[in-house]
Amino acid sequence: MLANRKLLISVIGGSDSAPPDALALAEEVGFLIARADAILVCGGLNGVMEAACKGAKRGGGITVGILPGSEVTTANPHVDIPIVTAMSTARNAIVVRTGDAIIAIDGSFGTLTEIAYALDLGKKVFALRSWDLAKVGVSTDLLIPVRSPREAVEKAIAEASRGR
Amino acid sequence: MLANRKLLISVIGGSDSAPPDALALAEEVGFLIARADAILVCGGLNGVMEAACKGAKRGGGITVGILPGSEVTTANPHVDIPIVTAMSTARNAIVVRTGDAIIAIDGSFGTLTEIAYALDLGKKVFALRSWDLAKVGVSTDLLIPVRSPREAVEKAIAEASRGR
Amino acid sequence: MLANRKLLISVIGGSDSAPPDALALAEEVGFLIARADAILVCGGLNGVMEAACKGAKRGGGITVGILPGSEVTTANPHVDIPIVTAMSTARNAIVVRTGDAIIAIDGSFGTLTEIAYALDLGKKVFALRSWDLAKVGVSTDLLIPVRSPREAVEKAIAEASRGR
Amino acid sequence: MLANRKLLISVIGGSDSAPPDALALAEEVGFLIARADAILVCGGLNGVMEAACKGAKRGGGITVGILPGSEVTTANPHVDIPIVTAMSTARNAIVVRTGDAIIAIDGSFGTLTEIAYALDLGKKVFALRSWDLAKVGVSTDLLIPVRSPREAVEKAIAEASRGR
Repeated sequence: MLANRKLLISVIGGSDSAPPDALALAEEVGFLIARADAILVCGGLNGVMEAACKGAKRGGGITVGILPGSEVTTANPHVDIPIVTAMSTARNAIVVRTGDAIIAIDGSFGTLTEIAYALDLGKKVFALRSWDLAKVGVSTDLLIPVRSPREAVEKAIAEASRGR
Repeated sequence: MLANRKLLISVIGGSDSAPPDALALAEEVGFLIARADAILVCGGLNGVMEAACKGAKRGGGITVGILPGSEVTTANPHVDIPIVTAMSTARNAIVVRTGDAIIAIDGSFGTLTEIAYALDLGKKVFALRSWDLAKVGVSTDLLIPVRSPREAVEKAIAEASRGR
Repeated sequence: MLANRKLLISVIGGSDSAPPDALALAEEVGFLIARADAILVCGGLNGVMEAACKGAKRGGGITVGILPGSEVTTANPHVDIPIVTAMSTARNAIVVRTGDAIIAIDGSFGTLTEIAYALDLGKKVFALRSWDLAKVGVSTDLLIPVRSPREAVEKAIAEASRGR
Repeated sequence: MLANRKLLISVIGGSDSAPPDALALAEEVGFLIARADAILVCGGLNGVMEAACKGAKRGGGITVGILPGSEVTTANPHVDIPIVTAMSTARNAIVVRTGDAIIAIDGSFGTLTEIAYALDLGKKVFALRSWDLAKVGVSTDLLIPVRSPREAVEKAIAEASRGR
């Protein structure tokens, strides 16, 4: 790959079910990813994914949406590069594998599949009001709670840069 | 599909990391699935998957292994029907979708992806010494703790039959 | 895997578009696969897939349908073991990888993806009134025309046995 | 999706086996795609894929590589956005589905899977010294022979624009 390619940060989180404050956090996360000159990767649909893409475009960034369906028209209106997988939620694995680092915001069981894929791959997840698995024994070395979009993006960029 | 086809029960759980008592439980689960005249579906590798297949074959049953890799030789020695996906852990979604009901035994993050896929699809998971997500708010209507192989298989068969 | 597991023969071919004589060939192929004590693997839908499954059940065999969709109810009525991939036609690769040998009957572009996958993997395809790619330079060492269901199944069983 | 998002043109073709003149054509195709302000999509590896990416970067464009493996390091040195599928050649379906139009250059059986996927989806393929399936009955309304990189890119851009 390009020696100096831009970092890819995957943002995972709820779609329809995401509450307004989660969307506000996601938009700020997307904005900050773009300002850090990184590319936003997500599942391409609505909710947290759409809010993050909206923020990234406001920040002048590039957005990639890895879609579960077979129609490019299912992408939210802020996706630059829709990847049409037609493989339903098995695409969650691709969203996780593609990110140089991962930020989780809110989210339900779909997001939990993605967090678990990340942990299975030994990838850190920075969690903003998302699944708190410390209570069931998951180490906070892997699933790291963060308190703000700024902390999430700074830590994700640092983690993604570490892999270079 | 066949009106009277046999039920498919997916057994998910740890591979290398599974402790001996989990393997004993898995073997008994596999045996009871076969005795209930159901087909065992799993990820086809070792640990809980292999123990469950071993039990199912001892019980005279049929075993399906949905393999992550591209080589049929990676299947454990008790798999009758190896499905070669070559799609790595994205095959976890297929293991879950294919089961008419799901039993989780022990397991680490890979198993957690499968439990989360099941819950995302609204499928019940019968959990035997596996992930206990009640502490993080997951309803026990979906992720149902069971105490023995017998309880796991009886409940899974009942759930699978319900869909007919 | 099981040292003595049954051979898996994948039958690929057209769905809705298959003409009656192709269906008759497919049913005979399925029947002969079952009589050879092998397991029939296919895409699980209608047309050639359904006819082959019907023949295999008549022959007392086992049928596996690797479905593109997310609903088990899409399987044809002769599928014993529906594998629910929810990955659309990307599942064609799995149909090909899973067969110890492959028989193509009739078929359109979907079948052509499967033939090409087989050739890419170095797997032989026995072709019964199917794509004739000799005219465009494909060696008949790989894509082997056969004239009858009996020839197709005998050669496929021999090829599948060779891999043991 | 973005109303004014850039067009995505998928370039498919051989990897190791591609001859030098095919690579020269691919590089020119990539360059012209970038000059047309479209984004190049490919399988991310070497051969035609790498040459096309190299040309696109020389033209100031953006390149997407949809990788079959699990390691981002397998991307060729001219990929901006590596999509890590870990699903082996089943990712060929994604390369085809993601392109608003498709250009085939040279190529062996892997490329044939992609051409067949495109035709199965009713997508046109512009073929530059690639598979000539007219001899086996494929309509040149679908698989359209072109004689130069310029003709390939002009026709692909026109086709991709038509879908808007």
